[in-house]
Amino acid sequence: MGRMLLQEAANYPVEVSLMENDPNCPAAHLCDHFIQGDITNYDDVIQFGKDLDVITIEIENVNVDALETLEQQGKTVIPRPHALRIIKNKIDQKSFYQQHQIPSADFAVLSNKNEIHDHHHLIPAAQKLATGGYDGKGVQLIHSKEDISKGFDAPSVLEKMIDIHKEIAIIVAVGQDASTTLYPPVEMVFDPVLNLLDFQICPADLKEQTLWKAEAMAISVAKNLASPGIFAVEMFVDKQENVWVNETAPRVHNSGHHTIEAHYSSQFDMVWRILLGYPLGNTKKIQSSIMVNLLGAEGFQGETVYEGLEEVLNIPNAFVHLYGKATTKPGRKMGHATVMSDEKQELLLQAKKIKRILSIKGKEKS
Amino acid sequence: MGRMLLQEAANYPVEVSLMENDPNCPAAHLCDHFIQGDITNYDDVIQFGKDLDVITIEIENVNVDALETLEQQGKTVIPRPHALRIIKNKIDQKSFYQQHQIPSADFAVLSNKNEIHDHHHLIPAAQKLATGGYDGKGVQLIHSKEDISKGFDAPSVLEKMIDIHKEIAIIVAVGQDASTTLYPPVEMVFDPVLNLLDFQICPADLKEQTLWKAEAMAISVAKNLASPGIFAVEMFVDKQENVWVNETAPRVHNSGHHTIEAHYSSQFDMVWRILLGYPLGNTKKIQSSIMVNLLGAEGFQGETVYEGLEEVLNIPNAFVHLYGKATTKPGRKMGHATVMSDEKQELLLQAKKIKRILSIKGKEKS
Repeated sequence: MGRMLLQEAANYPVEVSLMENDPNCPAAHLCDHFIQGDITNYDDVIQFGKDLDVITIEIENVNVDALETLEQQGKTVIPRPHALRIIKNKIDQKSFYQQHQIPSADFAVLSNKNEIHDHHHLIPAAQKLATGGYDGKGVQLIHSKEDISKGFDAPSVLEKMIDIHKEIAIIVAVGQDASTTLYPPVEMVFDPVLNLLDFQICPADLKEQTLWKAEAMAISVAKNLASPGIFAVEMFVDKQENVWVNETAPRVHNSGHHTIEAHYSSQFDMVWRILLGYPLGNTKKIQSSIMVNLLGAEGFQGETVYEGLEEVLNIPNAFVHLYGKATTKPGRKMGHATVMSDEKQELLLQAKKIKRILSIKGKEKS
Repeated sequence: MGRMLLQEAANYPVEVSLMENDPNCPAAHLCDHFIQGDITNYDDVIQFGKDLDVITIEIENVNVDALETLEQQGKTVIPRPHALRIIKNKIDQKSFYQQHQIPSADFAVLSNKNEIHDHHHLIPAAQKLATGGYDGKGVQLIHSKEDISKGFDAPSVLEKMIDIHKEIAIIVAVGQDASTTLYPPVEMVFDPVLNLLDFQICPADLKEQTLWKAEAMAISVAKNLASPGIFAVEMFVDKQENVWVNETAPRVHNSGHHTIEAHYSSQFDMVWRILLGYPLGNTKKIQSSIMVNLLGAEGFQGETVYEGLEEVLNIPNAFVHLYGKATTKPGRKMGHATVMSDEKQELLLQAKKIKRILSIKGKEKS
């Protein structure tokens, strides 16, 4: 994410400082000033932010207390720390949706595993840890009472499973002047094994009234968070065409990677417009698109090797992004590819071809 | 150029070293390894290149002897030094076209100003210094015998002026395996005062047979230079629909900036494909486009100030690239903007609007 943000930064007159623990991370060499530091450490974040004009994040797992202090000291922090705090804690996030009457799955707040037994009516359910979940980690599916023993014994939410027809996401951009714009919805397909996004199509194939509901909900989430920034609102559409908010990311998101080529202003371009106080960009699509995550292959780890890359680079309407990670492991996000076409069949054909052809392996068996 | 090359490098698994004299140049912070050094100095170039796998340039004004030594030592240098040497010297470049029967304006080789008198039949003519010309510098127009006194008293070529109907350019990409592909031609309009490119439209509006001639010539230039790389072949079309090669740049070029958004594989993406030995990219346009150079305004210099930027950022189909140069002066290339549309009138309208609205000034009067 940092890497793609910095690629776009080079279109604007902006001096960028970046803090990360790993000086070899894929973004470290693309900024004006790299500061080695721990984004979860209060002092590191304060030290990092104290001389900057505007501060943003590309992952939720940062020290919010420090960001709040910086904001109180008059720094512009985007997204605002109060909004980030709501989203970082799944209990607070679910309560936020409830408070603002934004439809999301029925749920219960749990402080330990045993309390699942008080909420049999929510099963089948997904139990989500209040804090620390990421990319499918921190989620336990409770299909039946027999699964309760597998549950997390920690503060969490228990969410009734939605009978999912489609999984979609809408990215909302909010300027510092509260101007707001939406990207067209994307439709997602997940890898059943790794529980990571497999590919996504834009625009989602939705009935008009379903689209309107989804757009209204996405705007409601962003408006009620009362913060500038980029918000990726993930939603479920059930078989009755009801729409339910699943969760929100207050930052650039995997569901917006296709916007780099397929939309006039990409989610990364949009971030700089927001941070620099420029007008919001044009979210319209140039063409329809499909995005494929390029994940580390099962069974291998270590130094990265690309197999089939040449053939993928020969697909005339594919755009390949490799994140330059020196080592891989099964399921690690190593890149993505976007295919553009106004023919849906062509999009699906090329996306499947890319998945079939390209293999990103480590040099060692894992 | 370096900045835009490095933006695209981040899509590939490549480690980039950059040498430049100015550690504050717009590209210095976007590479893995910045080496301060003089690209025109033999030892600096040798020292820089000795541990690299592949070496390229983004300006002709480099030490070719050093590149030749590196090539002899087994390094891959793109473009090949022999091709760069031909292009760097206007006398050699004109002789190259003549030798390969590639039509270019009639000319004479001069060693001093006085020799212009031996070639009255070429007047009106353009006298071009053999070495050191760049962006309109090193060119003296000799409209009549009275202008001869203004001529350069140095090795140069005297070129008969073509009765120009259109000025076009075709970018040719040549892979390490000699595979070759062409971008569609662009049509250029120059600023009559600064003699810098004002805006360019892609594709050029050419009769089919004129297009074929231009494409054949562009390929002939690239093939006879016998080198992988990107070659921007600038050509004149005269009123009789004859096509004449003006000059060739063996690198990414101003006439290819629109390819960033408007073509599947941009000229910058193409460079990495060539350097890394990947297949060439797709040069087809996604939409037609116009590109406007954003130049430092007349009458101002010093610390850069952008006027009218907000209004330009509100144009829904415009893509703005500001190169992040801290200071400006009249005519300095400070950025460019590309507008995409399949309606030519819309392209012209928005390009003129951008030129009218946006002003890049220095804080001091010059």
